Amino acid sequence: MFVDLNCDMGESFGAYQKGNDKEILNYVSSANIACGFHAGDPTTMRETVKLALEKGVAIGAHPGLPDLIGFGRRNMDVSAQEAYDIVLYQIGALHAFIRAEGGSLQHVKPHGALYNMAAKNSELAMAIAEAVYKADPGLILFGLAGSNLIKAGEKLGLQIAHEVFADRTYQLDGTLTPRKQANALITNDEQSVNQVIRMVKEGRVRTVQGDDTSVQADTICIHGDGQHALEFARKIRSGLETEGIEIRAWYASKFVQG
Amino acid sequence: MFVDLNCDMGESFGAYQKGNDKEILNYVSSANIACGFHAGDPTTMRETVKLALEKGVAIGAHPGLPDLIGFGRRNMDVSAQEAYDIVLYQIGALHAFIRAEGGSLQHVKPHGALYNMAAKNSELAMAIAEAVYKADPGLILFGLAGSNLIKAGEKLGLQIAHEVFADRTYQLDGTLTPRKQANALITNDEQSVNQVIRMVKEGRVRTVQGDDTSVQADTICIHGDGQHALEFARKIRSGLETEGIEIRAWYASKFVQG
Amino acid sequence: MFVDLNCDMGESFGAYQKGNDKEILNYVSSANIACGFHAGDPTTMRETVKLALEKGVAIGAHPGLPDLIGFGRRNMDVSAQEAYDIVLYQIGALHAFIRAEGGSLQHVKPHGALYNMAAKNSELAMAIAEAVYKADPGLILFGLAGSNLIKAGEKLGLQIAHEVFADRTYQLDGTLTPRKQANALITNDEQSVNQVIRMVKEGRVRTVQGDDTSVQADTICIHGDGQHALEFARKIRSGLETEGIEIRAWYASKFVQG
Amino acid sequence: MFVDLNCDMGESFGAYQKGNDKEILNYVSSANIACGFHAGDPTTMRETVKLALEKGVAIGAHPGLPDLIGFGRRNMDVSAQEAYDIVLYQIGALHAFIRAEGGSLQHVKPHGALYNMAAKNSELAMAIAEAVYKADPGLILFGLAGSNLIKAGEKLGLQIAHEVFADRTYQLDGTLTPRKQANALITNDEQSVNQVIRMVKEGRVRTVQGDDTSVQADTICIHGDGQHALEFARKIRSGLETEGIEIRAWYASKFVQG
Repeated sequence: MFVDLNCDMGESFGAYQKGNDKEILNYVSSANIACGFHAGDPTTMRETVKLALEKGVAIGAHPGLPDLIGFGRRNMDVSAQEAYDIVLYQIGALHAFIRAEGGSLQHVKPHGALYNMAAKNSELAMAIAEAVYKADPGLILFGLAGSNLIKAGEKLGLQIAHEVFADRTYQLDGTLTPRKQANALITNDEQSVNQVIRMVKEGRVRTVQGDDTSVQADTICIHGDGQHALEFARKIRSGLETEGIEIRAWYASKFVQG
Repeated sequence: MFVDLNCDMGESFGAYQKGNDKEILNYVSSANIACGFHAGDPTTMRETVKLALEKGVAIGAHPGLPDLIGFGRRNMDVSAQEAYDIVLYQIGALHAFIRAEGGSLQHVKPHGALYNMAAKNSELAMAIAEAVYKADPGLILFGLAGSNLIKAGEKLGLQIAHEVFADRTYQLDGTLTPRKQANALITNDEQSVNQVIRMVKEGRVRTVQGDDTSVQADTICIHGDGQHALEFARKIRSGLETEGIEIRAWYASKFVQG
Repeated sequence: MFVDLNCDMGESFGAYQKGNDKEILNYVSSANIACGFHAGDPTTMRETVKLALEKGVAIGAHPGLPDLIGFGRRNMDVSAQEAYDIVLYQIGALHAFIRAEGGSLQHVKPHGALYNMAAKNSELAMAIAEAVYKADPGLILFGLAGSNLIKAGEKLGLQIAHEVFADRTYQLDGTLTPRKQANALITNDEQSVNQVIRMVKEGRVRTVQGDDTSVQADTICIHGDGQHALEFARKIRSGLETEGIEIRAWYASKFVQG
Repeated sequence: MFVDLNCDMGESFGAYQKGNDKEILNYVSSANIACGFHAGDPTTMRETVKLALEKGVAIGAHPGLPDLIGFGRRNMDVSAQEAYDIVLYQIGALHAFIRAEGGSLQHVKPHGALYNMAAKNSELAMAIAEAVYKADPGLILFGLAGSNLIKAGEKLGLQIAHEVFADRTYQLDGTLTPRKQANALITNDEQSVNQVIRMVKEGRVRTVQGDDTSVQADTICIHGDGQHALEFARKIRSGLETEGIEIRAWYASKFVQG
């Protein structure tokens, strides 16, 4: 039994530092690297790719909306064609750094508002999945577990990874509780770890309504920013390993150097 | 005897239209496509790649400085490392669109101030050449004939193409007359065409000082913007063909579709 | 009887030219000048301010969303606070050029998606109106006739101008027919001119449903871009004048130089 | 006897935090607020203006080059006209937030590469000084002590403030030792404080060559970023006050609220 542990990174920009990439890479098996639209810049991308390869962590592109000031978190009315174009552009840019450093690209995970919009909007989801497919049909598409993005990837024959969140609560229909609601976040570390373990082992999660719902947990998203990030990364990793759940990327063997 | 005829294109941006790409593609053998930093955007890049492939014109990346407002024409003190990073990023982004459309990338030609700085600054030239090499050692590097950029490419074992300009005058040392000088531009079409023919056939050009200098003309740059562009493209093409000089890309055979 | 005729301008950006500002200024009484977020740049702003002052045309700020690639036409989930901030920033930037040239700022008209979102979203409308008020309580706020933006301006005690469109059809509830519908645009010049004259003289417009609705026409928006723009500007101006309707800015007297 | 103590601030951008503005404002008398080109964004500008007004710290505009990724530290070949335009734009944008909050703008200090280029290039210096003058002839222009920017301000009749640096060494000709040289920075706090006290009291500084040179110290620049910033701010403030040197803005009385 195994699961992938992923984290967004490479989110620094110019003189602005963000995240603890170097440390967090000790705990995760997949790294989603920002590609310069919502965060990241060419220099940060090269450096983050190198770090991930040194640690043997699988690399994914993390394309976002062209909204640096909003960190890609504000919904924008991009057309399906525009979504295809910006995703393909960003995958290509990151891919060049990975090839230059002798690595491979494992997956693509859209960022922020693009991820959320694609979870609900099937036309947008299909455009993004097509961009991933056109970039390389062997890539794995990461999307919210059970979402339209996952369905779009499946329709195109892409490998997909259902993503779950360690620190978010779930609704009976399997969706995340919207952030605006008071009970959206799990702030107790033990509760987070237990939720994740149960999702991985049983494919079930206790919802805010009190009943269980089923959820597929191929990859778990943890956050790399903030003071608490490293401590939580350690806890979730040790919690999973104690349960005999191996943490590894879906294609990890290909990415370990040397 | 043959020569390549190249033109910058894909320089539209969002709602802003620039150039006559569709028409100019009927005359040139290589297209240098802007990659989103000094001009171009993901949608324009995809469309321009498709147009070039439809016409069987070889495609090159045309990376520029991150200066949209200045169209990449203002020198910036980027470090060699930054130059490497921005060139690799842009090549990768364009490459994704070309692969998605089933084509191949033939060459890389830096744009504007980046091109001019790399002609003189050997450290910058080497950084750019390395980015090209790391992206794909089979790429052809276009640079000002006889410049440091050409030398950097040769040092790395890249294929290089010495570029000459149809509408610019030359100095005794083989450099272009700076644009600020009154006699920098050739405004007479016949004179431009004759200069180009002589450069291709004899490897020589009459300088503003009155004596000849030698110059290698692997590829000729013409401009695609402005009212006169198409007419001049027609003239130079017919002028060269009348002299029995074939116009084709260095790797053209690979790029012709069908 | 008089009405204001306004046009968006100053929409060039760096090397990208857009519009026929110099010519269209001969026909309009108010100019809405882009402020660098969706279009325009500092140099274009200075030049456009000078042109408008030379022609005695009243100047307005035309702030947009931070979406240059989408020309400010794509809805973005900006918060009310962010809307306040970006509008105040842009008004201030334009204001500096106007003061430097010895002119005054007459009005503010949000651009594109910001204008449309503010027409419907009362919280956003209030934030924008507050930015205008804080910039200068003597400014006139231009908004879609009868919209929430107009109501927000009235609530704050701002002078407001109900804006109508020459080339758009109207719904029974006084709103514009969405652009996605086939009958959204009026392509017949005579019909456009007649609709405008009736809106000004009678305060009524024939809707696509066949019945009339009432509409207040303080200022008429015409477009400055495209081949047909100048011809239509001439027609609407002469159509209005033939009916004895004077074309002048609400504060025009203050803006005429000399 | 008094001197002004200034610090760059408002350098956060979107999700990126930078500096300790809230704390550093307890120590300085003038705040140079970034205006959105090299750092800062509309929301950060509003918040920083409010903070400065609450603390009674005089506000200055801190305009930079349009180079967010390089934090405005890379020289760019902007023309004198472009420099005028970008400085006037940025002053206007900040001015709007200050007026909206009921404050006044005291000064303008160009940032980074723009500051350094204007110290040497008299044409650029004059363009910047003209932008300041056109924005408001009552503004104070901050420039490197004895530099061309100071001379340009004097020529136009602007009030000027000669700026000195606490942590930089000086050359016999009064210029700063270039950062690339090993002895450019003073890393010993006591030495920094003593240098500043002597510059203020005697108008002299010991150069790296061993002899003194004269320097006018109207305002002292300290840095707000980094762990050591607050501690050094405390030391320099107490060092100056112990010597009976009052720390206040040149126009401080106007800016204290209430």
